[in-house]
Amino acid sequence: MSNGLRARQDMEKERETLQAWKERVGQELDRVVAFWMEHSHDQEHGYSEASGVLGRVWMYCRLYRTFQRFHHSQLLNAAKAGGEFLLRYKCAFVLTRDGRPVKVQRTIFSECFYTMAMNELWRATGEVRYQTEAVEMMDQIVHWVREDASGLGRPQLQGAPTAEPMAVPMMLLNLVEQLGEADEELAGKYTELGDWCARRILQHVQRDGQAVLENVSEDGKELSGCLGRQQNPGHALEAGWFLLRHCIRKGDPELRAHVVDKFLLLPFRSGWDPDHGGLFYFQDADDFCPTQLEWAMKLWWPHSEAMIAFLMGYSESGDPVLLRLFYQVAEYTFRQFRDPEYGEWFGYLSREGKVALSIKGGPFKGEWGTGRGRRGCASRLPPALTTCPPPP
Amino acid sequence: MSNGLRARQDMEKERETLQAWKERVGQELDRVVAFWMEHSHDQEHGYSEASGVLGRVWMYCRLYRTFQRFHHSQLLNAAKAGGEFLLRYKCAFVLTRDGRPVKVQRTIFSECFYTMAMNELWRATGEVRYQTEAVEMMDQIVHWVREDASGLGRPQLQGAPTAEPMAVPMMLLNLVEQLGEADEELAGKYTELGDWCARRILQHVQRDGQAVLENVSEDGKELSGCLGRQQNPGHALEAGWFLLRHCIRKGDPELRAHVVDKFLLLPFRSGWDPDHGGLFYFQDADDFCPTQLEWAMKLWWPHSEAMIAFLMGYSESGDPVLLRLFYQVAEYTFRQFRDPEYGEWFGYLSREGKVALSIKGGPFKGEWGTGRGRRGCASRLPPALTTCPPPP
Repeated sequence: MSNGLRARQDMEKERETLQAWKERVGQELDRVVAFWMEHSHDQEHGYSEASGVLGRVWMYCRLYRTFQRFHHSQLLNAAKAGGEFLLRYKCAFVLTRDGRPVKVQRTIFSECFYTMAMNELWRATGEVRYQTEAVEMMDQIVHWVREDASGLGRPQLQGAPTAEPMAVPMMLLNLVEQLGEADEELAGKYTELGDWCARRILQHVQRDGQAVLENVSEDGKELSGCLGRQQNPGHALEAGWFLLRHCIRKGDPELRAHVVDKFLLLPFRSGWDPDHGGLFYFQDADDFCPTQLEWAMKLWWPHSEAMIAFLMGYSESGDPVLLRLFYQVAEYTFRQFRDPEYGEWFGYLSREGKVALSIKGGPFKGEWGTGRGRRGCASRLPPALTTCPPPP
Repeated sequence: MSNGLRARQDMEKERETLQAWKERVGQELDRVVAFWMEHSHDQEHGYSEASGVLGRVWMYCRLYRTFQRFHHSQLLNAAKAGGEFLLRYKCAFVLTRDGRPVKVQRTIFSECFYTMAMNELWRATGEVRYQTEAVEMMDQIVHWVREDASGLGRPQLQGAPTAEPMAVPMMLLNLVEQLGEADEELAGKYTELGDWCARRILQHVQRDGQAVLENVSEDGKELSGCLGRQQNPGHALEAGWFLLRHCIRKGDPELRAHVVDKFLLLPFRSGWDPDHGGLFYFQDADDFCPTQLEWAMKLWWPHSEAMIAFLMGYSESGDPVLLRLFYQVAEYTFRQFRDPEYGEWFGYLSREGKVALSIKGGPFKGEWGTGRGRRGCASRLPPALTTCPPPP
C-alpha cells in the first residue's frame, strides 16, 4: 500500500474519530442542558438560590443564539428571568431566593460574570439596556484593576505583597473577547486592554519558562512562600485557550507557539496524575506538598478547560500531539465525571477517581467562599461546541 | 474464682491499660515538643512566619508551668520571644516574618488566642503587663460578641441570617476557663458570661436532641439550607469537653449527663466512619452530601478533641462506655496520624486513611483562610496530659 494511500486512510480515520467525539459531546450537551432546565429553576422566585445565576444566564443566551436546536423560547425566557433577577440585585456574591444579599466578594469576579451575562442577554434579546449595563460595569471593572482597587473595599495592609492572581488578567481578557465579538467599535476600544491582559498573563510564566505560577508580583516577579509557588494546572490550561483566542485575533503564530508550549504542554506534563490519571487541582512549583486540603482531588472544570485548550490548539496548529492529548483528557473525563444514571457530571473525584461529592452543582453555597457555583452550569458543559466562563 | 476477685482483676487490668496509654501519650508529647523546638523557630526574626505563634506561645507557657520536665528556660524563652512578637503586632491573622500584617480576619478568633497566650505568659513569667493585655482584650471580645460586632468590620447585609457559629460561645467559654483558673476575682467576674456561653452552646442541640448543628440563629432556631444543616463531629466533641469543664466548675451532674449524651455520644455515633474508621470532618444533618470538598477527610484535630472528651467524660462519670470510646479513637489516631519516622503527626488523611498532605503543620498559610495554622502546634499535642485551644 502506497504511503499516499496510507496517509489518506489515516486522515480519514482521524476525521471519523473526531466526528464521533463531536457527536458524543453534542449528545452530552443536550443531556446537560436538559438536566439544568429541569432542575435549576425556582418556581416561586423565578430563579434558584445558586450563585450560579450569573453563569447560567450567560450560558442560556449563548446556547440560544449560537445553536439552532437551542433556539427556543424556554431557554431565552429562563435567561431573561435570570437577567431581571441580576438587574434588580446586581452582584452580591450570594443571594437569598428573594435576592437579598447574604455575602459580597471583595474581588471583581461577580462583576465580570455580570458583565458577560448582560452582554449575552443583549445579543440574545436585542434589548439595549442590557448592553448599557454590561459596558458601564466593564468600565468600572477596568477602573478597579488598572487604576484604583479601593472601591472593592479590601483593607490595604502594608505587609501584603502586590500579588496578581492570574485570574484577574484572564477574566479581563475573556471580557475583551466577549464584548468585542462582532462589535468593531468595542473591539477597537478594548484592543490596548487585551494586549495588556495578555502581557500580564504571560508574566506568570516564571523560572526560565519552566513553570506557570498562579500568583506573581505586579511587576512580574515570583512571590515568596507557598503563595508564590502555587500552581493550578487547569487554570493555566484555561489561560492557554484564552491566549489562543487572543493570538487568533492578533494573527500571531509565534505567540501561539509560545502559548501552546507554556500554557498547554507544560501544565499538562506537570499536572497530569501518572498513577490514576486526571489533573491535580493544586501543585507546588518546588514539589512541596500544597497546603490546600483538596490539592490532589480531580475536579470537573480543569478537565473541561484542558479539552477546550487542546482542541483549540489542534485546530489552530494542526499539531497531532495536541489532538492526542485531547483524546487522553476526554476519555478520562467522560469515563470518570459523567453520571450515566441521572445525567450531568459529578464535580469532585478523589485522587483515585472515586466520586467524592455526589452533588451535581448548584447550589454550591457561596458562603463556603469557593465561588465555583457561578460556574456550576457553564463550565461543566462539554467543550468544543461551546466555551465557558473562566473560574474566578 | 470469686466474682469479687474477678472484679478486682478486671480493675487491675484496666488500671494497667490506662497507665500504658498515659506513658504512650507522655512519650508522644515529648517527641512533639522536641519536634517543634527543633523546627519552628526563626533565627533571624525570633519567630516563624506561621500564624501558629498564638497557639505556640500558649502551649509553651502551659507546658512550662504545668510539667516539671518542661520547666526549662529554652521553652520559656521561646514563649517570651513569641509574646513580644505578638505584643508588637497584635492580632493580624497573618504576619510576615518581620511582623507586617498580610491579612486580617473579621472574626474574634485571633483575639481570643491572643488573650489565651497573654494570660499564660503572665502565669508563666509573673509579668503583669501580659495579664493587663489579656484582660483588656477579653473585655473587647465580650463587647464584640454581646454588644456590638461592628468593630470587627464585617459588612452587615440585610439578607444575612443572624447565624451563630458554635465556635463563638465555645471560644468565649474557653477564655472564661483560661482567665478564671486559680483566680477567684476573674472567675467571679466571668461567672455570668460562662453561664451565657453554656446556654448558647446548648442551643446548637436541635431536632429534638438528635443533632448538634454548627450554625443556628441567635435565638436558637435551625437555619435554612446547608449552612443550617452543617455538622462537624470533632467540633461538637470539643464543645463537649468545654462544657464538661463548665459542669465540673458548676458541680452539675445532671447537665454533665446531658452533655455526655448530646456532645460526646451523639456526634461520635454520627461522625465515625463505619467503613474506614476515623471521624468525618463535615456532615449534613439530613445526610445530604456536604458541600465542603474535604468533608470525608480525616483530620488530626477532631481526633485529639475526641480523645480529650472521652477521657474527661470517663474520669468524671466513670462510665466504661466512654473509656472504650477513648481506646477506639486513640488506637485509630496513634496508628494513622503518627509519623514514626520523622516525628509529629500528619494532619490530613484521605477518607481511607492514607496521608493526603505530608506537611506537619506550621506554617499553614493563613492566606488560605483556614486558620488552622494557629492551632498547628497546640491541638496536635496528645490529649489527657494537657488540653489545647479550640479551633476557630
